[in-house]
Amino acid sequence: MLIPLLSQNSRGQTGLVPVDYLQVCLSTCLSYLSVPGFEDDDGDDDDGEWDDDWDEGSMEGHAPGATGDGEGGMGEVGPVWLYPQSPLDCEVTDPKKGSKMYGLKSYIEYQVIPTSTQRPVNHRYKHFDWLYERLLEKFGSAIAIPGLPDKQVTGRFEEQFIRGRMERLQGWMRRMCRHPVVCQSHVFTLFLTYQDQKEWKLGKRRAERDVAVGQMIFSLMDPEAPEMDSVEVDQKYEQYSRFTKAMDDGVKELLGVGQTHWKRCTGPLPKEYQRIGEAFINLSTVFSSSGYQGESTLTDALTSAGTIYQEVAEIVAEQPKRDLHFLLETNREYKGLLGCFPETLAVHKAAIEKVKDGDKMVAAGRISTQEKTTMKQRLSCMSYSLQAEMNHFHSNRIYDYNRVMQLYLEGQVKFYEEVPL
Amino acid sequence: MLIPLLSQNSRGQTGLVPVDYLQVCLSTCLSYLSVPGFEDDDGDDDDGEWDDDWDEGSMEGHAPGATGDGEGGMGEVGPVWLYPQSPLDCEVTDPKKGSKMYGLKSYIEYQVIPTSTQRPVNHRYKHFDWLYERLLEKFGSAIAIPGLPDKQVTGRFEEQFIRGRMERLQGWMRRMCRHPVVCQSHVFTLFLTYQDQKEWKLGKRRAERDVAVGQMIFSLMDPEAPEMDSVEVDQKYEQYSRFTKAMDDGVKELLGVGQTHWKRCTGPLPKEYQRIGEAFINLSTVFSSSGYQGESTLTDALTSAGTIYQEVAEIVAEQPKRDLHFLLETNREYKGLLGCFPETLAVHKAAIEKVKDGDKMVAAGRISTQEKTTMKQRLSCMSYSLQAEMNHFHSNRIYDYNRVMQLYLEGQVKFYEEVPL
Repeated sequence: MLIPLLSQNSRGQTGLVPVDYLQVCLSTCLSYLSVPGFEDDDGDDDDGEWDDDWDEGSMEGHAPGATGDGEGGMGEVGPVWLYPQSPLDCEVTDPKKGSKMYGLKSYIEYQVIPTSTQRPVNHRYKHFDWLYERLLEKFGSAIAIPGLPDKQVTGRFEEQFIRGRMERLQGWMRRMCRHPVVCQSHVFTLFLTYQDQKEWKLGKRRAERDVAVGQMIFSLMDPEAPEMDSVEVDQKYEQYSRFTKAMDDGVKELLGVGQTHWKRCTGPLPKEYQRIGEAFINLSTVFSSSGYQGESTLTDALTSAGTIYQEVAEIVAEQPKRDLHFLLETNREYKGLLGCFPETLAVHKAAIEKVKDGDKMVAAGRISTQEKTTMKQRLSCMSYSLQAEMNHFHSNRIYDYNRVMQLYLEGQVKFYEEVPL
Repeated sequence: MLIPLLSQNSRGQTGLVPVDYLQVCLSTCLSYLSVPGFEDDDGDDDDGEWDDDWDEGSMEGHAPGATGDGEGGMGEVGPVWLYPQSPLDCEVTDPKKGSKMYGLKSYIEYQVIPTSTQRPVNHRYKHFDWLYERLLEKFGSAIAIPGLPDKQVTGRFEEQFIRGRMERLQGWMRRMCRHPVVCQSHVFTLFLTYQDQKEWKLGKRRAERDVAVGQMIFSLMDPEAPEMDSVEVDQKYEQYSRFTKAMDDGVKELLGVGQTHWKRCTGPLPKEYQRIGEAFINLSTVFSSSGYQGESTLTDALTSAGTIYQEVAEIVAEQPKRDLHFLLETNREYKGLLGCFPETLAVHKAAIEKVKDGDKMVAAGRISTQEKTTMKQRLSCMSYSLQAEMNHFHSNRIYDYNRVMQLYLEGQVKFYEEVPL
């Protein structure tokens, strides 16, 4: 069967940005071909439905609460992955402590509820980690598969840690759901929709035996487009290299100052407001003991100023959780995503170099002319794939940063309005 | 001649608090008697006018911009100094660099303009210091004479230092002007109103020869009131001891956290906002280089958010100069004033102990019964004086803290309103 993963979107719209926010005109058509031995068991393939209408698709933004401003003009973004018509999303929720081996071993189990079935499945952190390993192995050469939130040895059962981990697991899952190739893969579908332990165990074993991994992924793609000019391949590579490096630097800079700011706003700054408040209240108490008449207006003012400063301290300390948190989490996610590109780009670079050496290798009799032609075709396909992945990255980036900047600025405005002075 | 310095104010109002803010009912009358050898040259005494009407006085608040809330009820504050009907004030302004010894020695000269004459006189820091020494020597046992702003060896000619010193000299001078005993003294009048160098030099020499200094000041006071009960003397002493110590602690606490807050608000905090702004602008630049269409809304938003954060940085860094500065300066002044009380109270305590030993000393033939009676009278007078000084302190304190808290809170409200978010 055909599993369309890369595709021309005929209306030139990507699924993750508001429809009036970005209009693109596609020049290339990619499709994704099944090959023998790859995900050969599709008997219970829920995703089969995508096959039929992959090239009709106008993808309405599935991102929640997206708001877009109109942007004039039609642009070309080039190759894009085929986006499913019904976007997938999921919730990670309801962490529960479980135990095995007669209570000797404890763990936290989360409910994962995909929008496709609305049926919760249970997973432990180690299952997410297993999924991550499978996705990385299978798609890592072509697609940015960001790491999971860190493992932690101590304090794993503290509520704050569990909440934070759950939030990040949800962020990771939702990002994977948003990826049109990942979300339609068998292993991801298995993780989200397995019916029982038997299906889960069988599916796991099959996924672990999958041989269509690593650079094999490119064999499964057919851009159905003219072979790309080598100059263009080079240019695209350079452009994406520069961009991802520059954005990585920018994101790390923002994370750096954001984390410093977080610490100041939750630590020393509110402590100072608290101490100013205490100092006012203390002076008020001292003044009340003066034995001098007629200073209740002053002592009342000092007490209420002191109380207000203690409230300000609380508001200041809580504020970062209301706005800076999301700015930092989004940038942490992007730091993770951007960390994937050097690897992807290195695979690409190696292929470019190999093709450049192609003539010499043919002359030296190390490869045949046919092999050289196949190498060039493969590189062209890789470049289309890289462009589709970058376009996916860009449309997500624009949506995510628009949303988080709006959240952050709204939070900041509220903060300055809410301070009870 | 009689120079009234301590007095019953018949309307029960002190000069430094708004008239409807505080009403006091006085129980005691003190007056200030001239004695042979003390300030004997009163030929050009501008302050002589106070003599006649010292006990008529309804003192309207001479403090600038005072606003008060009504406080119900009449209270008793006890002895008060006699306040002049026209309050004195002065401006310290227009610092100019002068030089002596053919330019070998440079100094800064300030114009001091008293409200009484409106005629500027010039003074260097060392003249203020000379005046401080005279006032301390003469009145230090009875009146809080706070120190001048610190001497500084390096950077004396830097504009910021000169401005700061001038502001504090003005604060010191205005506080001295507000003290009814100090402001009517010959040496203070000389400093503010000397006509020429000859008068200044003669006046200086006379002041330096003044013998009515130290505890002699109490010989010049006549409370014209019944001798105070020794239990009451003890109680007052204890009350003032406790209060000034507690307020000193409170003021130091506020100064401590205020200075920390000042450093944070002028240093690391705006630097962080600046860096957040830069990070936004930088991300905007990176995003603009994506080659992806339709993200100008995002990049514009990032750039303007970045610009706003750089403005916020400036506002945050400037804000302490607009509000916290005055809170800190007022508390610094009070720290200086409060630092005078341990000395004054020690003089008082010693007198209390001496009177307590009176009977034994009479029995041992070391003093006569007459001397013991005089000692008791003197102690009573000292206690009246201490009460008058404390009442002066309290009325100033209430006025100053009302004003500075209002300024500070208004400044803070403006800050939260002005942030351009």
